[in-house]
Amino acid sequence: MEIIDVRLAQRSYPIYVEPGGLDHLGALYRRHGLGPRAALITDELVRPLWADQALQSLESSGVETLLITLPPGEEHKSLVSADHLYEKLIEAGLDRKATIIALGGGVIGDLAGFVAATYLRGVAYIQIATTLIAQVDSSVGGKTGVNHRLGKNLVGAFYQPRLVLIDPGLLRTLPMRERWCGMSEVLKYGLIRDLELFEPLESELTDLVELRDLEKLSRIIARCCQIKAAIISQDERESDLRRLLNFGHTIGHALEAASRYALKHGEAVAWGMLAATWLSFAKGSLDEGEWARITHTLEKIHRPALGAYDDQTVLKYIHRDKKVQDGRIHFVFLHGIGEAFVCPEVDDQDLRDALGYLRTRDATRA
Amino acid sequence: MEIIDVRLAQRSYPIYVEPGGLDHLGALYRRHGLGPRAALITDELVRPLWADQALQSLESSGVETLLITLPPGEEHKSLVSADHLYEKLIEAGLDRKATIIALGGGVIGDLAGFVAATYLRGVAYIQIATTLIAQVDSSVGGKTGVNHRLGKNLVGAFYQPRLVLIDPGLLRTLPMRERWCGMSEVLKYGLIRDLELFEPLESELTDLVELRDLEKLSRIIARCCQIKAAIISQDERESDLRRLLNFGHTIGHALEAASRYALKHGEAVAWGMLAATWLSFAKGSLDEGEWARITHTLEKIHRPALGAYDDQTVLKYIHRDKKVQDGRIHFVFLHGIGEAFVCPEVDDQDLRDALGYLRTRDATRA
Repeated sequence: MEIIDVRLAQRSYPIYVEPGGLDHLGALYRRHGLGPRAALITDELVRPLWADQALQSLESSGVETLLITLPPGEEHKSLVSADHLYEKLIEAGLDRKATIIALGGGVIGDLAGFVAATYLRGVAYIQIATTLIAQVDSSVGGKTGVNHRLGKNLVGAFYQPRLVLIDPGLLRTLPMRERWCGMSEVLKYGLIRDLELFEPLESELTDLVELRDLEKLSRIIARCCQIKAAIISQDERESDLRRLLNFGHTIGHALEAASRYALKHGEAVAWGMLAATWLSFAKGSLDEGEWARITHTLEKIHRPALGAYDDQTVLKYIHRDKKVQDGRIHFVFLHGIGEAFVCPEVDDQDLRDALGYLRTRDATRA
Repeated sequence: MEIIDVRLAQRSYPIYVEPGGLDHLGALYRRHGLGPRAALITDELVRPLWADQALQSLESSGVETLLITLPPGEEHKSLVSADHLYEKLIEAGLDRKATIIALGGGVIGDLAGFVAATYLRGVAYIQIATTLIAQVDSSVGGKTGVNHRLGKNLVGAFYQPRLVLIDPGLLRTLPMRERWCGMSEVLKYGLIRDLELFEPLESELTDLVELRDLEKLSRIIARCCQIKAAIISQDERESDLRRLLNFGHTIGHALEAASRYALKHGEAVAWGMLAATWLSFAKGSLDEGEWARITHTLEKIHRPALGAYDDQTVLKYIHRDKKVQDGRIHFVFLHGIGEAFVCPEVDDQDLRDALGYLRTRDATRA
């Protein structure tokens, strides 16, 4: 089992990464000295796949667990769902010593984490990430929250779990499209911070996505968590270092929104990373060889075509983004594989050029 | 101006106490380096009394302020109100650099504080307490939250303000009944921790409630905040030391609930302190002279008669209380004026005796 320590000023916690780790849930729960009662929060897609195994592990360790199942989907990451969860917790008489366990992807993690942060002013929280993207991204950093009808992720709290459990074996039931989305974020970590992480991805990307070597994938996931944890530890609230994690996200988020979410997040980020890599080359910070090498690997990520979009719409979304401060876009470039930096010197013409470049890549796929 | 530093592991903040302090709001805002935009949250009762003065002070310091007014009353301390506030903040385009300012009593403070804790995962927060009870109690400790339809204060967060402003001059518009409620909590601080605080209260209680000496009241309020801050700093989450603050509250809360809130919190606590003081005497920890002296002062607190209640109902509420852990009631006793201690050795017969004693006091008032 790999254990990554997320060290934070206020509270530190471990991430346990192991194929088959779900069976150790009860033992880990006990090891952390958590209270005798828990609520396991999941959704209707994950419940038939993994909830029984989680409940059995908890039960065999003597943890009395209330199972709460929500409908799946981003639209249920809402205050209404939070209110429903509070109600279930209160009705079950769960007190301050209770633990909330999220079993699911980003939506369940964000929602259950927010409820843990705010039920009785905060109870213990465990996250079990069941998607690759949640395993390498949302399980580190303590972001919790819900959407508001006027915008995504506008309500929330920074709240750290007591522990995170990542069982790469859970990815067996994850649809291929979701796995590729996660792999896009995995590649990001290699590109911004770690050549040694990038190299196995370069050679075995498809094998990894097909789960042909769970032990190797497990080490890769652990490495991603380590990279994010190191960045977050140095920079708990968002600023320059943390901005590196946004590599590919400035254009990616905008493409995602412009596609009206026909592109999934990881897919849009893959496109965004292609654009950012090209822009790094075009602006002279990345040499042609590395650009070609990175692009070759990024192109392997399965994703839909970009299709028709209007530069102006994409630019509008970019400027609306939280990453834009005082009108300046803090764009993440690469010097090389594993070496990223932030530069606010990007203008609309650069962005238009990058979007034009993406169009040529899109055309070669058609 | 008196400045009390609330020192916490995570974040420290000052409480400014001064008659006329509301006029310095804008200057204090600037001194703390807060962003150019703020939202002032108040209720319909406080708005015509003090909102203009607050807005003028902010405006003269160049702070662009959005005023949001809610209906008054505990029933609006809800997720529905929080949602409404998020909407107003989003519509006004307030970003992470915005500051939320609460202008009101406990309801507005708890609600606005919760919204500050959760809007965009937390923005800066200032509390201006307009009731005596909020000035000496809820302005220290970082408790924020809303009620759930299944119970009070079940949803919330610990979230510290950047600063608290207490202007005792604001009490001029506070109804006498509310002032007496606050004075009940003021007396509590003297009884649990500070003979020197108790003495002026003993001799001048009515003059102080009638605001005949704002400077002296100001020093008394500051002392209460200091006592609470010292306790909280040593014991940020609730445990033994913090339990001292519950003096009079075990029986008080139960009487409040049993009266169906016909008794206000401070009034019920006054009754509860009478009971706890008597029990301290009856169990031998307090001598008769001190018991009589304390009782003489507590009896001055204006409050309605207890009226008819049923011991069994009160006991039921006591056992339902959060202060009861594993069936043991952590009851706060006095050794002397300024010296409190927690003892879990209280049984139902003790409580029945104390309730019987209260009945005799109630009868002497009739």
